Amino acid sequence: MGIDPGLTRCGVGVVEGTLGRPPRLVAVGVVRTSTGLDLARRLLALEEGLAAWFDEYRPEAAGIERVFAQHNLNSVMDTAQASGVAAVSAARRGLPVTFHTPSEVKAAVTGSGTADKAQVTQMITRILKLAEAPRPADAADALAVAVTQIWRGGATNRYAAAVAAAKGKR
Amino acid sequence: MGIDPGLTRCGVGVVEGTLGRPPRLVAVGVVRTSTGLDLARRLLALEEGLAAWFDEYRPEAAGIERVFAQHNLNSVMDTAQASGVAAVSAARRGLPVTFHTPSEVKAAVTGSGTADKAQVTQMITRILKLAEAPRPADAADALAVAVTQIWRGGATNRYAAAVAAAKGKR
Repeated sequence: MGIDPGLTRCGVGVVEGTLGRPPRLVAVGVVRTSTGLDLARRLLALEEGLAAWFDEYRPEAAGIERVFAQHNLNSVMDTAQASGVAAVSAARRGLPVTFHTPSEVKAAVTGSGTADKAQVTQMITRILKLAEAPRPADAADALAVAVTQIWRGGATNRYAAAVAAAKGKR
Repeated sequence: MGIDPGLTRCGVGVVEGTLGRPPRLVAVGVVRTSTGLDLARRLLALEEGLAAWFDEYRPEAAGIERVFAQHNLNSVMDTAQASGVAAVSAARRGLPVTFHTPSEVKAAVTGSGTADKAQVTQMITRILKLAEAPRPADAADALAVAVTQIWRGGATNRYAAAVAAAKGKR
């Protein structure tokens, strides 16, 4: 499962696949929370919305797009809080969780870390052999994160597991 | 309950009181998470640590210090994710949650929004009539947030409730 964290729209994409086989779309959508709620209730609504996705699709791993500081710092802080809720939701279910930077996601699906949103959407549509581009952009991004998780997450998880094991031996 | 969100040390302070009466210390401490865990597992450990505090002290409301962008952006993003976990933990328990900016907290306990950490610690020690200053600083900050919640949170909550009610009527 790939997650593009957000408070107004949190993209969620479920993709099936292993390295060496073409990934297949399982489901894609967004969890929306009402701007009429206060921040804590919105985060709770997000947690509940994500729970429905986790319960229905029972993913084996979660990839989350890492939040970076941009122009609108307040909105970034909300997005980071949403990311925390997504991460803890996955961790509570015992899933490995990998954070992928936006440029890692772009590089994984387009070959270029500086691709724009339109290119990412175009490539993910092609990779998953979809009849039309997923909308909104957050949904397309979540699928790109999910594909990145399949193509890069495994290695990262094995590396993390090895580091954790080595630390445990000290 | 006041929470000074953090991933390495998350301050938690429980204070009893109402407007017009001197607040009283109930408990103070920090939830620590191991740097040996990955980010998602640390957020989960924080959630579990906070759950123990919520379950033991059953607070009526939660105040959380709002995270602002500072020098170290990566560390701020981690703190914001920790804040999201704290907020959703309180919201899940049905508590009103109010975010207080650092300057609101400083102003509430010292009278000046630009007070430094030492002044906040000194004043919170005096306000709660403690024999010695709470340590670490995150614990003292959490108590300051809790006192701010008592002194300002009620009004803010009533205002938020009125706004929510007005929106519902539209």
